[in-house]
Amino acid sequence: MIWQTIFLGVVFQLIFVFGGSNNNNNNYEKNVYIWPMPESVHYGNKTLILSKDFNLKTDGTKYKDESGILRDGFTRLLDVVTLNNVVEYNVGKVDPSVLLHGIHVVVLSEGDELQYGVDESYKLYINSKGNNPNYAHIEAATVYGALHALQTFSQLCHFNLNTRKLVVSQIPISITDRPRFSYRGLLIDTSRHYQSLPMIKKVIDSMAYAKLNVLHWHIVDHQSFPLEIPSFPKLWNGAYSRPERYTVAAAAEIVSYAQRRGINVLAELDVPGHARSWGIGYPALWPSKTCREPLDVSNDFTFKLINGILSDFSKIFKYRFVHLGGDEVDTTCWTLSPRIRKWMKQKGLNESSAYEYFVLKAQKIALSHGYEVINWEETFNHFGDKLDRKTVVHNWLGGGVAEQVVKAGLRCIVSNQDKWYLDHLDTEWQEFYMNEPLTNITKPEQQKLVLGGEVCAWGEHIDASDLESTIWPRAAAAAERLWTQYDKLAKDPNEATSRISNFRCLLNQRGVAAAPLDMPGRGAPDGPGSCYLQ
Amino acid sequence: MIWQTIFLGVVFQLIFVFGGSNNNNNNYEKNVYIWPMPESVHYGNKTLILSKDFNLKTDGTKYKDESGILRDGFTRLLDVVTLNNVVEYNVGKVDPSVLLHGIHVVVLSEGDELQYGVDESYKLYINSKGNNPNYAHIEAATVYGALHALQTFSQLCHFNLNTRKLVVSQIPISITDRPRFSYRGLLIDTSRHYQSLPMIKKVIDSMAYAKLNVLHWHIVDHQSFPLEIPSFPKLWNGAYSRPERYTVAAAAEIVSYAQRRGINVLAELDVPGHARSWGIGYPALWPSKTCREPLDVSNDFTFKLINGILSDFSKIFKYRFVHLGGDEVDTTCWTLSPRIRKWMKQKGLNESSAYEYFVLKAQKIALSHGYEVINWEETFNHFGDKLDRKTVVHNWLGGGVAEQVVKAGLRCIVSNQDKWYLDHLDTEWQEFYMNEPLTNITKPEQQKLVLGGEVCAWGEHIDASDLESTIWPRAAAAAERLWTQYDKLAKDPNEATSRISNFRCLLNQRGVAAAPLDMPGRGAPDGPGSCYLQ
Repeated sequence: MIWQTIFLGVVFQLIFVFGGSNNNNNNYEKNVYIWPMPESVHYGNKTLILSKDFNLKTDGTKYKDESGILRDGFTRLLDVVTLNNVVEYNVGKVDPSVLLHGIHVVVLSEGDELQYGVDESYKLYINSKGNNPNYAHIEAATVYGALHALQTFSQLCHFNLNTRKLVVSQIPISITDRPRFSYRGLLIDTSRHYQSLPMIKKVIDSMAYAKLNVLHWHIVDHQSFPLEIPSFPKLWNGAYSRPERYTVAAAAEIVSYAQRRGINVLAELDVPGHARSWGIGYPALWPSKTCREPLDVSNDFTFKLINGILSDFSKIFKYRFVHLGGDEVDTTCWTLSPRIRKWMKQKGLNESSAYEYFVLKAQKIALSHGYEVINWEETFNHFGDKLDRKTVVHNWLGGGVAEQVVKAGLRCIVSNQDKWYLDHLDTEWQEFYMNEPLTNITKPEQQKLVLGGEVCAWGEHIDASDLESTIWPRAAAAAERLWTQYDKLAKDPNEATSRISNFRCLLNQRGVAAAPLDMPGRGAPDGPGSCYLQ
Repeated sequence: MIWQTIFLGVVFQLIFVFGGSNNNNNNYEKNVYIWPMPESVHYGNKTLILSKDFNLKTDGTKYKDESGILRDGFTRLLDVVTLNNVVEYNVGKVDPSVLLHGIHVVVLSEGDELQYGVDESYKLYINSKGNNPNYAHIEAATVYGALHALQTFSQLCHFNLNTRKLVVSQIPISITDRPRFSYRGLLIDTSRHYQSLPMIKKVIDSMAYAKLNVLHWHIVDHQSFPLEIPSFPKLWNGAYSRPERYTVAAAAEIVSYAQRRGINVLAELDVPGHARSWGIGYPALWPSKTCREPLDVSNDFTFKLINGILSDFSKIFKYRFVHLGGDEVDTTCWTLSPRIRKWMKQKGLNESSAYEYFVLKAQKIALSHGYEVINWEETFNHFGDKLDRKTVVHNWLGGGVAEQVVKAGLRCIVSNQDKWYLDHLDTEWQEFYMNEPLTNITKPEQQKLVLGGEVCAWGEHIDASDLESTIWPRAAAAAERLWTQYDKLAKDPNEATSRISNFRCLLNQRGVAAAPLDMPGRGAPDGPGSCYLQ
């Protein structure tokens, strides 16, 4: 069935990629091969050839690009469109009137601070005959909108087998675009398996292709503590090995690399439940030598250490939010430890209220460092009314949570595990696509409280060998759900099959190990065949 | 059991990578973490720091490097050792006497033609205190030996967490090295699944890390014909789709990219049995519309076309050898076609002798274009005495073939499928490691006829998503078997576990999706853990 659907999709696609003419502007989605789908696309049926000296023009921009973010983005555009093609400029004569000489980018704001809610909108248009020389035009409120426009432009480029040149077809084309949600995340987990800098950078590159904008870095957990914390230098004794560590400089490099691609890094400190590895360096954090989780709630040192970590975090991770975890807290060890049991009794706390005490105290520390706090949903489920009012509740256990969170006036990020956990290999891309963050949330003021959503690649069975193939192409399905305006989303995911298939093949052509669409997560192809049909 | 073995290995490794001192020169293999193992390594226990201006010096070299092969190799060395580390030159003071300022490379020959049998040997030595400034020294007969030396050097470099600098330890060190076999191949199959240029280039990069030197490009087969053939421009109509094609310029780019890394590309034309896709463009090649394989033996056009392809090949693929396949030929369609049946009768041929006729005729065409021919072993098994005396027989069906081939005076490449097929996921790295090409071949003149061996990544279930993880780390096990002198090979593969584990983690650190060692081929890790223990 899926085979047939894809095949039909591919027929459309073949018409597009391979040079048919399309001028049905009323039903344009069928012939638009951009992922995620922009807010609005209008196009014609002419083709332009990218000139040999294709260049970036910025006349009239307010943005000075002193840090080179735009210039580097343009260079990456040139790299990415030529990666899988050898352009032959010496072949054939080219009519100068069909040359596109470059892109004229106008950014309306001077600054380039990347923060939650930064304006990511853009306009992109290419006339069939503009001024001579002809340039594509991008207009964006910020450089990050302009980067999205360059990503869109890269998807309009094709290698023409006849001319041996790169072309943009469907000219004139006019695109208006902006994200539906401001938080479009992907979680990677470097505690269960260390991921090297090149692997993380590759993930960031591919996130930018899909217009995801938050790398949720679940850095440390029960199993290992790979990050250097200058304030408490023994913490990374909890790393798996010496090479499986991140120095502060390496973490800062990741943050900078992401930021230059319009992606914020959300750092997580999953306390108190997922922190056994912390005690390798500081055993006082363990309730006892034999009962090592959660972190000792009775010990001032625990909070002094969290304060130190968050102080160090605040120098590296400049995103407005920090993630403080709070999930899956089994408090048995607190009662089993005579010391902690005694402390709880003195404070009049039971295990449940001690858990609340811990989470709220950690929140206050984070707030003191200028962060707003994200917590996993258990904190809301247990004591939602006590959470700081700026708390963002991160759903994961299942559907239906977001509506309760926003009803309570708190903000929410959606990651229900039945649909948006990438390590659930049996969840297919269609389910990722159809997972709607605003399900049953109809009031505009409540809808605004849903910041967005995130797909999660928990690392128990993910190392460098399967990271990309576990993420892609399923994360792309969620990326469209999070980027594309609701009325432009496919109501039946199969309507999007040929377009997401095209995107997965594009990832392959760019060297990304995106897996077949018609298999469970990261499944190998079940036989020979075209990328576009698998 | 494997866990225990690895763990013991890792203890040694920890001592090495993490800065213990090693001065046991008599039993050096235990403390040498180079893959594949060089012919000879002598080392001390000092450490040098790579200076900020680490540079390439070539005083006294005969090689002019006009094409920049050495210079680019040196740049790649700098890239690869810094990929996973952020060096902090502003941290701490460095004693100038422990600085290593660069590498002094002396290449003894002027030319840089890469051919079968090119001298790949090298010497690499680093004194603890050389002249001031101190340089590492590489001496090689050819630039390709020098590239191998740079790969070895890259494996000696480590990031030191205390100094935040790159260091080489075990100084003074002196390495003499050369390959055991001149043919050390990896087959990729772009007919069952197209592989993009970036994916193929990544494979080439990682081959160079393991000192493999032949990319056997099984370009076309039954399923698709992705390559442009200017002489017969309809052949690539047999591609899966328009984007899933290689232009001549793209193929030349692959060849050049490989050659600049010391890797030859062996192109294959698998005739007459694996060629159904050829008839999409030229249906006359099919025995009939309903019976489409093997190629029509009775039609002069078939051989005219093979001649055209090989003529075009000879302009791109400059390796001494071309692979003409010849395996798995089911000749039933020849008899079923009245035209071919009639022709065979006229010629006095039966199906078997017509197969021989085809293979020998194709061989002659290849020879006329200056190629020596490699054929799969069925050709030898059926009519070995008729094959051109320069034929190289490519074993695949099982063990024991090489000894028959060399007894018959022909040359051989070993790829027995029970041990060296990467798509056989149940074949573990230890079996790859222990597969000995010279089994039962004791006479020196017969040993010389074994050119080497090759691991094969047949593409039925391999696309961009699992190419790297199917190849690595198991191909590395074969790579050591093919590179390392026999007496330096581990007699029990478990003696090599910690070293190959180190190499697989090195691949991960370089962004290569090498899979866990302790799982079947490309298996995901079965739980959280350190790369060095999985």
